[in-house]
Amino acid sequence: MSVTSQGTDRAARLARAATLTDGKICPPDRATALIEAVVMPGDRVTIEGDNQKQADFLAAALAKADPTRLHDLHMVQSVLALPDHLAVFERGIASRLDFAFAGPQSRKLAELVTNGTVKVGAIHTYLELYARMLVDLTPRVALIVADKADRDGNLYTGPNTEDTPTIAEAASFRGGIVVAQVNEIVDRLPRVDIPCDWVDVVVPSPKPYAIEPLFTRDPAKVRDANVLMATMAIAAVYEPFQVQRLNHGIGYATAAIELILPTYAAARGLKGKVASHFVLNPHPTLIPAVEAGFVDNVYCFGSELGMERYVASRANVFPVGADGNLRSNRALAQVAGQYACDMFVGATLQVDPQGNSSTATKGRITGFGGAPNMGADARGRRHDSPTWLRAGEEAGDPLRGRKLVVQMVQTQQPNGAPSFVERLDAFDLAASAGFARPPVMVYGDDVTHVITEKGVANLLRCRLPAEREAALRAVAGDTEFGRRQSPEASEDLRRRGIVMLPSDLGIDVRSATRDLLAARTIDDLVTASGGLYVPPAKFRKPAATPATTNAA
Amino acid sequence: MSVTSQGTDRAARLARAATLTDGKICPPDRATALIEAVVMPGDRVTIEGDNQKQADFLAAALAKADPTRLHDLHMVQSVLALPDHLAVFERGIASRLDFAFAGPQSRKLAELVTNGTVKVGAIHTYLELYARMLVDLTPRVALIVADKADRDGNLYTGPNTEDTPTIAEAASFRGGIVVAQVNEIVDRLPRVDIPCDWVDVVVPSPKPYAIEPLFTRDPAKVRDANVLMATMAIAAVYEPFQVQRLNHGIGYATAAIELILPTYAAARGLKGKVASHFVLNPHPTLIPAVEAGFVDNVYCFGSELGMERYVASRANVFPVGADGNLRSNRALAQVAGQYACDMFVGATLQVDPQGNSSTATKGRITGFGGAPNMGADARGRRHDSPTWLRAGEEAGDPLRGRKLVVQMVQTQQPNGAPSFVERLDAFDLAASAGFARPPVMVYGDDVTHVITEKGVANLLRCRLPAEREAALRAVAGDTEFGRRQSPEASEDLRRRGIVMLPSDLGIDVRSATRDLLAARTIDDLVTASGGLYVPPAKFRKPAATPATTNAA
Repeated sequence: MSVTSQGTDRAARLARAATLTDGKICPPDRATALIEAVVMPGDRVTIEGDNQKQADFLAAALAKADPTRLHDLHMVQSVLALPDHLAVFERGIASRLDFAFAGPQSRKLAELVTNGTVKVGAIHTYLELYARMLVDLTPRVALIVADKADRDGNLYTGPNTEDTPTIAEAASFRGGIVVAQVNEIVDRLPRVDIPCDWVDVVVPSPKPYAIEPLFTRDPAKVRDANVLMATMAIAAVYEPFQVQRLNHGIGYATAAIELILPTYAAARGLKGKVASHFVLNPHPTLIPAVEAGFVDNVYCFGSELGMERYVASRANVFPVGADGNLRSNRALAQVAGQYACDMFVGATLQVDPQGNSSTATKGRITGFGGAPNMGADARGRRHDSPTWLRAGEEAGDPLRGRKLVVQMVQTQQPNGAPSFVERLDAFDLAASAGFARPPVMVYGDDVTHVITEKGVANLLRCRLPAEREAALRAVAGDTEFGRRQSPEASEDLRRRGIVMLPSDLGIDVRSATRDLLAARTIDDLVTASGGLYVPPAKFRKPAATPATTNAA
Repeated sequence: MSVTSQGTDRAARLARAATLTDGKICPPDRATALIEAVVMPGDRVTIEGDNQKQADFLAAALAKADPTRLHDLHMVQSVLALPDHLAVFERGIASRLDFAFAGPQSRKLAELVTNGTVKVGAIHTYLELYARMLVDLTPRVALIVADKADRDGNLYTGPNTEDTPTIAEAASFRGGIVVAQVNEIVDRLPRVDIPCDWVDVVVPSPKPYAIEPLFTRDPAKVRDANVLMATMAIAAVYEPFQVQRLNHGIGYATAAIELILPTYAAARGLKGKVASHFVLNPHPTLIPAVEAGFVDNVYCFGSELGMERYVASRANVFPVGADGNLRSNRALAQVAGQYACDMFVGATLQVDPQGNSSTATKGRITGFGGAPNMGADARGRRHDSPTWLRAGEEAGDPLRGRKLVVQMVQTQQPNGAPSFVERLDAFDLAASAGFARPPVMVYGDDVTHVITEKGVANLLRCRLPAEREAALRAVAGDTEFGRRQSPEASEDLRRRGIVMLPSDLGIDVRSATRDLLAARTIDDLVTASGGLYVPPAKFRKPAATPATTNAA
């Protein structure tokens, strides 16, 4: 599109929108009409779908559009979380998709790809998708979400800033149209997160936006095996590598680590020496470590439902503005996770003989989210640290250090499926879905440690693929994968320090139990927070409850 | 620092500042007093030192502070460009430094490191430094720079947005104090780049901030050898790998490529097929390709002096806001360069037998800037593209693609020094400066192609270090490095498609000359821009002129 036609096109779209708005404000009952006015067939459109908050009202408004007016849209969005995110394809409004994660919609998405309703461009990590939104997947229209707006269109996101600034910047500086749904319109915002120049239309939504507490793990569900593996992680990695700057995945494995920092790690004299700087959402399970003074700094991708007051009261640890509330930023946090952290600790469903791991299973297209970005050696990194240098030395690299990438995986999944497999399901998924490459989450040659309930494999010390495979079989325990190797071969790896059993690390398996947890229930977390943490309903009641919505 | 003391501390600093300001505005003659009021001994302080624009007035004001009041500061800044950036160390105000690039101050910095005046924490790439500013190098005070402010403290950066939003976010959401120097205070800004909630004090500076046109290459200085190498790059890499999304380094090698896109590449039918999406500052040498419709999109780290009106008039190509001016963003552009580009093309001073390259020389500590981030295989990347897949296939990787990393280097530097060396000066520099690792700019195992005036080495096809070394010697020509290999060995690599000579690529060396350039002088660029490009004085006059300042 030429410069003149682009300017004319934007002006024409805004002129059509102006017939529906009062200044920048569009009443919610005109939301679909607004979208039909500003979106054109064939447009690239982004719906803000974060890990947590959702532009759900605008997603629904788009899904109600007339497919004879709006069709062939190319959706570019981080997360497919809501049924409406797929309804736009089922109704013939959109046909192409570039995305990063499709957790709850992964099975439905696989069906729609198979029957040709959705044509996927590529599956990205978050950071890749933002990058492409600036380069070749620039949105013509962005449907974003914030807590509050003023009448000029300035936006306040509250603690869940997440993707909003990045999407708004990508669209508004490409002649795109930015439409924001907000929970309320106020005279004066607590702070401005997105300047009004970047926002064209504001729609007050009838209900607060949907938001999910995805990063809350109930300490009551942490099992003894998780604690045992957590003690091994601290004794085999955190302590010898002096890991201060790190990122944790979600799941009970890392929740257990967070919960034994003030007990097990503190007893080993590690306070101030390890785990002092996190890039992490405000996990409730981090509260005891924060209160124990273990944690200096947490930079956040997003917030976590129920943690708002606690985080606001700990401005010395979390990124809090002069207004007193968290500002998160997923794009910058992904950068921080990649380049300011010496270690990523994650969990997985399947590991193959080369250490490749994946959460992909047949019949589901889940995508990648952020883990591959954090769970890769950052080869562009040039600054050193004791951790990074030691990892490089153990890997035998004379020229550069290495990032620690730790996978925590029990030898059996909770459903009884083996975690170590000769071939990842990801390979079959790639074949059936027509992907050019299998959706590997973390590649084996980037993994430095695999920890099971049996032991720790230090892959940094493996010089050959066969040695790496042997190390993995040695920690796979009494599984088919593990039994393929002789006990003598495993014992040899142990003598060479490649494989470590709990006893090698001075860990008494009988005492590595839930007794080590600094909090054993959600109530304990509330108490540790001084009553500032307010758990969402689903974590307060034993019975399942419907999806929580934002209480703002 | 506890949450309470952090809040009290910030309030106390702001209360001291309030005695010097009228609202948020501080008169320039009180700038040093202001800095002494808001900075405390031992603080981490950042001075905005971008690639282009400089917070020069605030840097000078800090350098004038009383060292008995302000001492032991820890400076965290992207670029050391100005004498005042080192004066703070020489005067005993600061003692520690974490940084990314020290171009013009590299020799002086090396002296101050050697004599113990400056203690360097680490040398970073830009993206790493921003990441650490969010995690463990959070600034207590940020001294930033913008074009204009309003009386509330909202900031307008103009086209050179660069690092300002990232630094402001890092400081203001950590209880830090943000002080901005601006060229003028106005009633209404063209747009808001930094919301006023993030800015504590504004200082109108007596002179517009210093800014350098670092990315302008005069076409008159492009030599025939540059053009020959540019034709090889297009024939051996851009065309067969169908490279659409890319980043260019600075220098005459890539300037030559930019200038033959509308001639040589267009004649090969490549318009719309290669080099359509750039992550790049607005290089004046890109004007002919933009005007020829070769380029769809350029996302920018910063702007370039003299290109303001041209860029504003090409909003279909560059990121331009509703106010009609470019907004750049170095942090997001580094992300885009890493994750949305299939290729980085750079130049270097020295290459060793394994393809490691560096611009480091003895007696200078230059730092890294951004090249290592772009010039590394992005192992966290998961989305595919034809370019990325083909590079992975040529490298024999069944599981993932590869980023193309191309080094353009003449076998001799303009000063006659050999470019191919048995050992990089970077190794000696590391030994003499006490670095833990040599400052390698791009590692050999990340490089995919090396192009000299003699030929192209495709390192993707080399399976062993010895083969890579042989391929490099084959393109080193009649140099000591090249003569260490028999012509037969080089001929064997050529037969196997690892080494390509110009004739193998269908290039007639006699016709690969300056005649191919779409613009041969700065005046030609002005003409191509329709008079919209306004070259800075140093490019208009033959004689050397003093450093250009911003004409805003």
